[in-house]
Amino acid sequence: MPPAHPFDDDKLKEECGIYGVIGVADAANFVALGLHALQHRGQEAGGIVCHHPDHGFNNARRFGYVRDNFTDQNLMATLPGPLAIGHVRYSTAGGKAPVIRDVQPFFGEFSMGGAAVAHNGNITNADALRRELIERGSIFQSNSDSECIIHLMARSLQKTIPDRMEDALRRVEGAFSVVAMTRTKLIGVRDPLGVRPLVLGQIGDGWVLSSETCALDIIGARYVREVEPGEMVVITDQGVESRRPFRKQPSRFCIFEHVYFSRPDSIIGGRSVYETRRQIGIELAKESPVDADLVCPVPDSGTPAAIGFSHESGIPYAMGIIRNQYMGRTFIEPTEQIRNMGVRLKLNVNRALIEGKRVILVDDSVVRGTTSRKIKEMILDAGAKEVHFRIASPPTAWPCFYGVDTPEREKLLAATMSEEEMRDHLQVDSLRFISLDGLYRAVGEAEGRNAKCPQYCDACFSGEYPVAPSDQIEKGFTLKAAE
Amino acid sequence: MPPAHPFDDDKLKEECGIYGVIGVADAANFVALGLHALQHRGQEAGGIVCHHPDHGFNNARRFGYVRDNFTDQNLMATLPGPLAIGHVRYSTAGGKAPVIRDVQPFFGEFSMGGAAVAHNGNITNADALRRELIERGSIFQSNSDSECIIHLMARSLQKTIPDRMEDALRRVEGAFSVVAMTRTKLIGVRDPLGVRPLVLGQIGDGWVLSSETCALDIIGARYVREVEPGEMVVITDQGVESRRPFRKQPSRFCIFEHVYFSRPDSIIGGRSVYETRRQIGIELAKESPVDADLVCPVPDSGTPAAIGFSHESGIPYAMGIIRNQYMGRTFIEPTEQIRNMGVRLKLNVNRALIEGKRVILVDDSVVRGTTSRKIKEMILDAGAKEVHFRIASPPTAWPCFYGVDTPEREKLLAATMSEEEMRDHLQVDSLRFISLDGLYRAVGEAEGRNAKCPQYCDACFSGEYPVAPSDQIEKGFTLKAAE
Amino acid sequence: MPPAHPFDDDKLKEECGIYGVIGVADAANFVALGLHALQHRGQEAGGIVCHHPDHGFNNARRFGYVRDNFTDQNLMATLPGPLAIGHVRYSTAGGKAPVIRDVQPFFGEFSMGGAAVAHNGNITNADALRRELIERGSIFQSNSDSECIIHLMARSLQKTIPDRMEDALRRVEGAFSVVAMTRTKLIGVRDPLGVRPLVLGQIGDGWVLSSETCALDIIGARYVREVEPGEMVVITDQGVESRRPFRKQPSRFCIFEHVYFSRPDSIIGGRSVYETRRQIGIELAKESPVDADLVCPVPDSGTPAAIGFSHESGIPYAMGIIRNQYMGRTFIEPTEQIRNMGVRLKLNVNRALIEGKRVILVDDSVVRGTTSRKIKEMILDAGAKEVHFRIASPPTAWPCFYGVDTPEREKLLAATMSEEEMRDHLQVDSLRFISLDGLYRAVGEAEGRNAKCPQYCDACFSGEYPVAPSDQIEKGFTLKAAE
Amino acid sequence: MPPAHPFDDDKLKEECGIYGVIGVADAANFVALGLHALQHRGQEAGGIVCHHPDHGFNNARRFGYVRDNFTDQNLMATLPGPLAIGHVRYSTAGGKAPVIRDVQPFFGEFSMGGAAVAHNGNITNADALRRELIERGSIFQSNSDSECIIHLMARSLQKTIPDRMEDALRRVEGAFSVVAMTRTKLIGVRDPLGVRPLVLGQIGDGWVLSSETCALDIIGARYVREVEPGEMVVITDQGVESRRPFRKQPSRFCIFEHVYFSRPDSIIGGRSVYETRRQIGIELAKESPVDADLVCPVPDSGTPAAIGFSHESGIPYAMGIIRNQYMGRTFIEPTEQIRNMGVRLKLNVNRALIEGKRVILVDDSVVRGTTSRKIKEMILDAGAKEVHFRIASPPTAWPCFYGVDTPEREKLLAATMSEEEMRDHLQVDSLRFISLDGLYRAVGEAEGRNAKCPQYCDACFSGEYPVAPSDQIEKGFTLKAAE
Repeated sequence: MPPAHPFDDDKLKEECGIYGVIGVADAANFVALGLHALQHRGQEAGGIVCHHPDHGFNNARRFGYVRDNFTDQNLMATLPGPLAIGHVRYSTAGGKAPVIRDVQPFFGEFSMGGAAVAHNGNITNADALRRELIERGSIFQSNSDSECIIHLMARSLQKTIPDRMEDALRRVEGAFSVVAMTRTKLIGVRDPLGVRPLVLGQIGDGWVLSSETCALDIIGARYVREVEPGEMVVITDQGVESRRPFRKQPSRFCIFEHVYFSRPDSIIGGRSVYETRRQIGIELAKESPVDADLVCPVPDSGTPAAIGFSHESGIPYAMGIIRNQYMGRTFIEPTEQIRNMGVRLKLNVNRALIEGKRVILVDDSVVRGTTSRKIKEMILDAGAKEVHFRIASPPTAWPCFYGVDTPEREKLLAATMSEEEMRDHLQVDSLRFISLDGLYRAVGEAEGRNAKCPQYCDACFSGEYPVAPSDQIEKGFTLKAAE
Repeated sequence: MPPAHPFDDDKLKEECGIYGVIGVADAANFVALGLHALQHRGQEAGGIVCHHPDHGFNNARRFGYVRDNFTDQNLMATLPGPLAIGHVRYSTAGGKAPVIRDVQPFFGEFSMGGAAVAHNGNITNADALRRELIERGSIFQSNSDSECIIHLMARSLQKTIPDRMEDALRRVEGAFSVVAMTRTKLIGVRDPLGVRPLVLGQIGDGWVLSSETCALDIIGARYVREVEPGEMVVITDQGVESRRPFRKQPSRFCIFEHVYFSRPDSIIGGRSVYETRRQIGIELAKESPVDADLVCPVPDSGTPAAIGFSHESGIPYAMGIIRNQYMGRTFIEPTEQIRNMGVRLKLNVNRALIEGKRVILVDDSVVRGTTSRKIKEMILDAGAKEVHFRIASPPTAWPCFYGVDTPEREKLLAATMSEEEMRDHLQVDSLRFISLDGLYRAVGEAEGRNAKCPQYCDACFSGEYPVAPSDQIEKGFTLKAAE
Repeated sequence: MPPAHPFDDDKLKEECGIYGVIGVADAANFVALGLHALQHRGQEAGGIVCHHPDHGFNNARRFGYVRDNFTDQNLMATLPGPLAIGHVRYSTAGGKAPVIRDVQPFFGEFSMGGAAVAHNGNITNADALRRELIERGSIFQSNSDSECIIHLMARSLQKTIPDRMEDALRRVEGAFSVVAMTRTKLIGVRDPLGVRPLVLGQIGDGWVLSSETCALDIIGARYVREVEPGEMVVITDQGVESRRPFRKQPSRFCIFEHVYFSRPDSIIGGRSVYETRRQIGIELAKESPVDADLVCPVPDSGTPAAIGFSHESGIPYAMGIIRNQYMGRTFIEPTEQIRNMGVRLKLNVNRALIEGKRVILVDDSVVRGTTSRKIKEMILDAGAKEVHFRIASPPTAWPCFYGVDTPEREKLLAATMSEEEMRDHLQVDSLRFISLDGLYRAVGEAEGRNAKCPQYCDACFSGEYPVAPSDQIEKGFTLKAAE
Repeated sequence: MPPAHPFDDDKLKEECGIYGVIGVADAANFVALGLHALQHRGQEAGGIVCHHPDHGFNNARRFGYVRDNFTDQNLMATLPGPLAIGHVRYSTAGGKAPVIRDVQPFFGEFSMGGAAVAHNGNITNADALRRELIERGSIFQSNSDSECIIHLMARSLQKTIPDRMEDALRRVEGAFSVVAMTRTKLIGVRDPLGVRPLVLGQIGDGWVLSSETCALDIIGARYVREVEPGEMVVITDQGVESRRPFRKQPSRFCIFEHVYFSRPDSIIGGRSVYETRRQIGIELAKESPVDADLVCPVPDSGTPAAIGFSHESGIPYAMGIIRNQYMGRTFIEPTEQIRNMGVRLKLNVNRALIEGKRVILVDDSVVRGTTSRKIKEMILDAGAKEVHFRIASPPTAWPCFYGVDTPEREKLLAATMSEEEMRDHLQVDSLRFISLDGLYRAVGEAEGRNAKCPQYCDACFSGEYPVAPSDQIEKGFTLKAAE
């Protein structure tokens, strides 16, 4: 399976995209399109569950891209009905071979009828919940923490599925956006902090729930509003009912959605993601200017910030690194080893452009630092005179436990090195990250970060976790010492 | 199979990429990498032939991407030896289902041993040659015009394979770059006009032939020189022998390789393709300036020209159109028809950026005009105030018969309309193409086009065919009237 | 998937074979061999679960033949360990497309560790159990009645898995042979009546459980004894422990296992199945002699009875009908319809042998009668002078609810017609079934059937069901009126 | 791919079956059925070529069984038209991996139109012909000796395809039955000796050519006559034209077709193959009687001879060896080696029947003797008191060069041992082969073999080759010394 980004192995990875549609003919076709637009949020596998009054619930789960599976006419014909939900995921099961029964949505038959649930985020007390449920006789089919939700629902004594879901989600800690369905209802929920995104759209007489607005655009749906942190929406052919199952809290949306996860053509909180990233480039150019000949993005995710940096600095923007469009499986390396083959397969330097130049490279983040190093070498091999890195996020020093795949803390370059040490390690002429305040300004907080009550979840930068990661703490993870 | 470009159905398409390696262990692995880097020249199918002293000739031909086939360890293990050639192709068989026996390289057993041949270009007298060969008892296995070459070789009375190839190619009219191999020799040839590209590289003690330099970079090979128009190079472990089988003529390289076919990180005639395209944007901005708020490329092929246009005009460069990275097979459209679904699947407008703006869209070419129209509508739907198209090539008014897939003449928008009529047809605020002289200046001809003896093949723009397309004329094609 | 017998659509079908091995290296390989030998008991799908101390539980479930799936070295390498169980099944889900999650063994994670269960038979109160379990919060993953067992186990309050299994099986009504495993135990159970078979074997220091002895032979295991009706055996590296979870009852083994289901090289109750069938032929020849020229089996299942009939009657045995060895998927019939194509694909008449002869055809059973009719026509078309059917079982007049796929009662020819009416319907010169007493004699009951307390389950012939089919009665099935 | 017979590796193997139909709608569907009935003549691959007036020639070639490929509705829809031929083959390419371009029929485009050719047999001067054709400029696509025929046709100066085929076949030595087609003609030819079979049938207004009559039966075609040795039939909608391209010779039909290759329900020369084999059993019982308790066939090919032996000797016939119906790919043997696993997978002994008995085993032939030995051990392990082998053919002491796959001479048991030595080698109580005269009597030659001018080709028994195997002699094969 081709990775989403050229250095996928050195990026944080969003783990899921969720989508649901009600009130249109052949809802599963819309869901397939929506999941396709959310493919950057999870490339490993995808699943769709749908319901038709005559044919009941049907589902399909497949490894691989949405476009390679859910475009098959024979398959889509098995997914009829006006109501469907879907899920794309990136695997979180460290090292294990993926298994199809881990692919969401999960389905359960209850005494009042069936329900399906798809989840984006991470349940931080899933281990404890799973132990308790097994003790009481539940049989788990998957290794996914998300399966807890459907078992908690199966055991709830409430009479309706939305009520059972409220019951279940009140037992769950962590970050979650959920899309669920019964025979007649489409349900969306965001956790009280609203860490993961979820938006509401309208298409004709039907309604859509989606992780991002770009997946409303693809089907021509109109953006209505975000599902609010702590809100549950229950949508039927009577319209949208809003519930508030949780105690109210100040919200803490994931700031990394702005930096990298979301697509540049999505809109979050009324702001264009592209424009936010361009603003990050402008802030970076203000905070850390440098005299140079060219501003080059590390493709493709560094592009908007590089455009902003070029605009603010007046240094010309150029495509110094060209990405091979046909990336994919790993080639067998010829026996005579070629240095950096891994990178050359995906990227090539525009040698004629770079030679003799002082080059500013704009990238979105530094995780392990392995690819930054390779790119620097490619650029120097091509004859660059100077290489300056400008990074569109603060140093990533802490793992995320809210639905993002991060390396263990000791593998994060910024967990063990200062900015200056990282520069030495990467052997570049300069290396600068945007400041945390600069990032907050770029996302629209003119005053920067409110240290008392941060406006966003920025735990990966700050180590301040808005929800205690209890399963991890039990396994030995040490929180940042209070200052 | 995913298309290479978002509007593949409205682009001219290069039909082939060729590659060969000699003098390294496991040459087929290098060829796989090289073909991967040439994938933009042909996405339908690929083939590799190799030779090993103990295992003889082996081959594999597959539909689909190089990365999906030639990364399989089991397959590659069947392709041993220090000498291999390969081919990627885009189908030219109008409407017919592709058949694997049309996939090159073609192989023939001669009395002095076997030989394999891969061809980029088009043989303009192939129909006549085929008729003659069948009459004399040859049995064709494919529908490809390129198979003529190997049958002509089989019937040559010469004693060596290079001599037989000279014999064969002297009977052939049209445009051709050829890579061929025997048990011990790697052979490269360009037709006398040098219409199609072919370059020579070196890796360790081995040698490489490739359609483009980007495929030397991927394996870390050093660029040596271009194979010259009319030259045959015969490479053995003794080195490179240069032959001149044809009468000398002024060269006529395909100018569209600069505009669109070649990868931006390739180098042609000492010039960076990226830089040439940026210069086209500069020329366009000089020739056809317009007052506007943003310069946006039609991704991805319009990007370098848009950067040049922005640089010259001082109008900010912006990514107004975002390309979905996971394009591919056609989705099943939901029953409630959605306008422009085809385009939305692949592209999305950055609505927040475009709204209320005067937008310059830079595209590489206009063929049928169908997608230009759809993009204009997307931009207007997103609230743009004005839409100005700037095209990085002159109007495409004539079909190519030299190895490029073009629609029939009557389907080319520029064959039936003036620039002004096209503007009306597309309903945009302005539409300007670069002039033919401007294009020649951008590729480095300071004086522009030499009308007496044009420096390039520009038949698709000018209708002046450097080699008479005899099969086509027999079928009724009418050449441009002499002026 | 090729059917097991040429007229599969007109046969009763055994629904499952089960197998388990403990105490050998790579137990899954033995299970694959065993399931291959039991393939005649279920051709639709197969599954294996295994356990390795280091690698935990692993499983594979596949549609299709054992030989087509469980011979793949890559697959088998994922199934390590000294303990494994497996299952082959014929689908029972009337009309529905088969789904892989219905394929056994079923697995559950309990608080004391995991367990897997494979089942041959049918649970006659499964509907009621399922409703109750869902009401209490269990989530079913399959449509199989067998899944009830593992959910009942999950909810048991017992401390060990064998104890939980006793708990579960005491709630279950119907016919069942079960093979199950934990991390360290192989478990086998037969229901109190012992309707379905299960035998115990030994191989080296290891132990084997199998539906039939032929699957001991294939791996060279030594036959030890049958698991007794109502017995549970729990096998560890300490040896075999025998438990008696149920109240003692007189046994009622399925007599049709002798007639058709079991393989002729298996041994049941100390008797060779082949020899029993030959004895049926001898009984038939005694009960219903007829003057004729040839005795021909309907291949392959009628062969031993035909040999016995020939031996007793002195009429020569001959292969009048030849079976095509390569049966399989349905061919597309040429547009000019050919009568009886369905049968000709699988069988052909030995015309030269049959012509002008009086032929006795020996078949194992008559279900719908559709194929008996076709065979009669083939034989007459080939020029036979007379056709006499001799059937190696009594008229099949009642459906089986104990793990055998039978048509609804009204589709059974013998449910609506007398023997004479059937003869008229089939238009043959004579038609005779073995008597129920004759069948009992052939299986070794010298006195015939004990009407007060029949020695076998013969419900399909007699309508006397040893366990009330409660789910069926709830759905409207009418038992035979008491006489 | 499952083998045809349980000991395929120790049998002579017929290499091809051929089939053709003209004058019916969707002829390819009939050909698929015919090839299915001929599957025993070649299991490795199959191919069909057809012609439709509007759609021209189409073809499909596939590895694997006919039933697994040519039952796919999508595939068959690509094979329209009233005229089609087909081929099934067993690979002859010793050791090499099979390649699809070796699969027949072969197709060639000539100046007067296309033709396809399928061949059963072997061309004994193919090496010399191939060398000559390559020298003159023909390009071979396959490794098959049969491809010579189509190249010879391509180079013929004759004006019609039947005339060109006469030209070509006159150059060819060896044994061949050919089915060929043009746009309007179905053509059948047998070599002058008529070594390989070919029969003519009629279905409605259409005509059929087939290797055996059993493949007429499957489509309901009426048997008309055999194509005669040395005859060419050219069938159009005007009827059947008979030609005689070769000099007349006494015929030499392959006697092994009676013994093993042909299906028992086929008719050869007016005789039922089943009946011939039963007669062989009768001859055997007369020639080599033995006192014993049971006559058991080695399934399935020994069955008719065993029935005959039992009938003649009065010793009861019994199924002492049971064949597993679901043979196929090789299973992974468990690490604890089990002796004779290879055989147990396919066969099992009916232990209860055999124990303490004196057993006569009837097999069709002994080639290497490897499996005879294994079967003997199985029988003794099961407790047999005595084992007597009776073989339904004379000792196989010479390889066949006329289209049958035989081991090299030194691997044939009978090439190096006398009958008595073989008995010792196999360690059985007795071993007897039918005499060559006895075999001739069984096939209907009351006087036995005519040593001066044998009525059949029996080279594999006698070493008397009716056509000199010239390619083999060139490679060093030594003919039997004249006596």
